[in-house]
Amino acid sequence: MTQLHLNLFLHDTGHHEASWRLPESDPHAHLGIEYHERLARIAEAAKFDSVFLADSPVLWGQVGRRPSGKLEPTLLLAALARATSRIGLIATASTTYNDPFNLSRRFSSLDHISGGRAGWNVVTTAGDDAARNFGLDGQPAHFDRYERADEFLHVAKKLWDSWDDDAIVADKERGVHAEADRVHTVDHEGRYFRVRGPLNVPRSPQGHPVLVQAGSSEDGKGFAARHAEAVFTAQQTLAEAKAFYADIKDRARTAGRDPDHVKVLPGLVPVIGATEAEALAADAELDRLIVAEYARGQLAKLLRVDPESLELDRPLPADLPSEDEIEGAKSRYTLVVELARREELTVRELIGRLGGGRGHKTFAGTPEQVADTIEHWFREGAADGFNIMPAVLPSGLELFATEVVPILRQRGLFRTEYTGTTLRDHYGLPRPANPFSRSLAVV
Amino acid sequence: MTQLHLNLFLHDTGHHEASWRLPESDPHAHLGIEYHERLARIAEAAKFDSVFLADSPVLWGQVGRRPSGKLEPTLLLAALARATSRIGLIATASTTYNDPFNLSRRFSSLDHISGGRAGWNVVTTAGDDAARNFGLDGQPAHFDRYERADEFLHVAKKLWDSWDDDAIVADKERGVHAEADRVHTVDHEGRYFRVRGPLNVPRSPQGHPVLVQAGSSEDGKGFAARHAEAVFTAQQTLAEAKAFYADIKDRARTAGRDPDHVKVLPGLVPVIGATEAEALAADAELDRLIVAEYARGQLAKLLRVDPESLELDRPLPADLPSEDEIEGAKSRYTLVVELARREELTVRELIGRLGGGRGHKTFAGTPEQVADTIEHWFREGAADGFNIMPAVLPSGLELFATEVVPILRQRGLFRTEYTGTTLRDHYGLPRPANPFSRSLAVV
Repeated sequence: MTQLHLNLFLHDTGHHEASWRLPESDPHAHLGIEYHERLARIAEAAKFDSVFLADSPVLWGQVGRRPSGKLEPTLLLAALARATSRIGLIATASTTYNDPFNLSRRFSSLDHISGGRAGWNVVTTAGDDAARNFGLDGQPAHFDRYERADEFLHVAKKLWDSWDDDAIVADKERGVHAEADRVHTVDHEGRYFRVRGPLNVPRSPQGHPVLVQAGSSEDGKGFAARHAEAVFTAQQTLAEAKAFYADIKDRARTAGRDPDHVKVLPGLVPVIGATEAEALAADAELDRLIVAEYARGQLAKLLRVDPESLELDRPLPADLPSEDEIEGAKSRYTLVVELARREELTVRELIGRLGGGRGHKTFAGTPEQVADTIEHWFREGAADGFNIMPAVLPSGLELFATEVVPILRQRGLFRTEYTGTTLRDHYGLPRPANPFSRSLAVV
Repeated sequence: MTQLHLNLFLHDTGHHEASWRLPESDPHAHLGIEYHERLARIAEAAKFDSVFLADSPVLWGQVGRRPSGKLEPTLLLAALARATSRIGLIATASTTYNDPFNLSRRFSSLDHISGGRAGWNVVTTAGDDAARNFGLDGQPAHFDRYERADEFLHVAKKLWDSWDDDAIVADKERGVHAEADRVHTVDHEGRYFRVRGPLNVPRSPQGHPVLVQAGSSEDGKGFAARHAEAVFTAQQTLAEAKAFYADIKDRARTAGRDPDHVKVLPGLVPVIGATEAEALAADAELDRLIVAEYARGQLAKLLRVDPESLELDRPLPADLPSEDEIEGAKSRYTLVVELARREELTVRELIGRLGGGRGHKTFAGTPEQVADTIEHWFREGAADGFNIMPAVLPSGLELFATEVVPILRQRGLFRTEYTGTTLRDHYGLPRPANPFSRSLAVV
């Protein structure tokens, strides 16, 4: 039987925004490399497919609210590569605020350093605040960001393929290190980029890093269908998750790709207790620690409204903008508004729901109940696996690894050992052929 | 007595271009992280101040000639940070082909990950080939590159200072992680950059990474006087090295800085033998392995002449361009031409001299003789220390560590133990005060 995939979404003291306020939490953990090594090792011991770091080139949110400011993910994962030996390492990086030569090289380097365990979560970076760190007055339009992302990926793939796999011959006798006719310029000239190449790193163990994507807007899903090999998504209900899953697989098929080579991984925020009552109490304690003023400001920013218009004990205002008017984080916007309307939540209740998982599905229960939910979504065709986002770290990860993973194994749903060495092996993804390759040309 | 500083310049199988052809050399070493860890550990065991990686965002030179294509240095050093605990870690990065927000963040992250051991060798990146990887037809003019570098450093320093050292209070009771009034936008608007800030990483252990510079043109020396805390330089003779040393210190003084806070480190390529004859034989064997055609092509590129105009057994042609006509790598150009003229070298002899150290001083001799040269240059006021560039790695480093370093210690010239934990501690450099800092403002 096909087994499911598990990714650990690393997020300082946990995904719940108040997790840092718990007595057990180290509020300086986000800057500590040993802490991240510890988490990655726990995930690797539990045979997770990968760990993942979100990112944006801007100081995001209010600095009082929770640990903010993050180590740059490609560097952090280069360090984690040496504390682990099998688990995949996925970093977020922006196509809007990087250029293809340098960023392609960083991911190729991470793939070399990790022995074939690199993944890139491709984002286009919404928000005017980020734009203002890069000489712009405001963010480029949603469509333009995705058009640039498409061209960026096109260039990146050419650069990763600019060395044949067999370019290095290391012939000491002849004094030829690499064969010049196996290293190619890319000579790209497009709307956004002109790049000559070749890349200054030989082709990496995986050929390309695994490409991950997490936008769920129309542009985002189209991009995923063309490029993504794994999709992170926020889904609140089984019905919506199944529809999203089917949509992504259809789009991949339409784009001429094997739908099995696009893994769909909804986010899950488990809050685990020995009993359901214990889990619910832990969840309630976390929500109690949310500072409402911070959360209201953040929610107002997402909704593009004045914070004063959000009254804590009343529903969202009726006159919110439509998704079409939102330029960035479109799908997050719609998810939040629909969640509030569907469940008739007050602003305070909505803040509680978002504080735990920022729109991802929070599930408080026993290990058995968490495993049941995972199995149900997996068997119903809503997921190829899950993006596990513990509300509290490291304790939530430790509980998941020791209590939930063994149940998934008993049910035959999850591996007991790694069978391969690369991230592509873990996710069951093929290594991309090199279109430049001499051997192909000769056939 | 003041002691000297030692930096290890990491360079795959060694600085001699033919080193990879020796039986002992692993020609795949440049892509191997374990190999770099081994070198860094040897250097740390010998109490070197730092290791250093050169870099350029372009595939440089002919791929047949020697190992080419390199792992991106900030990622490589993030990995090395976890294999070492005291030695400094200096990466090269270009101000011409990066933007200040992302690059400042990478160096701040490296400083956090390494516990205060990061250094940045600031380069402006000469050459049309690099320019063509970034949408340009050819390199920006020398002056423009340095003007951009100046503004880049100005922005980077503001970003590194955008969090007060005491911004994070982690007050769980009040629910305040960092104090908002201790985190500042930078609001930079200049000729090359507009950057709002703040940086999305809190201030790092060293405040700023140690700033290193290696250009010896007029623009380069001016830049060094304003910003550099260590200067790498290629000097062939004691007289020239003394003049350069005095010039840099004078310029620093004129710029209002303490000249002791700009360390001058000439490159030294030691080829060590048990006897002088053995060392000279090893050197000759390396030169014999140089493929003359590769080297002639590279020399022709540096000199901006047709390779055919360089006859192997004749001197350089008389009608070479003047330094003023050279747009990039000016000082390297002049050094090579002067070396050939002064010593009346044929093209073949010049290639031998350059093959070993690319213009840096090669010295073949016994450990005692190498130590004598180091002591002589140090005492004569030509150097605060040396950028050690073993012709062959790891063997040349091992010999230097086990044979030369103990002699320097016996003479009281080099440390027996680290006395501090940061790169600034090792080089005797102050931690930059934060001009934004609340505590300063209150005084």
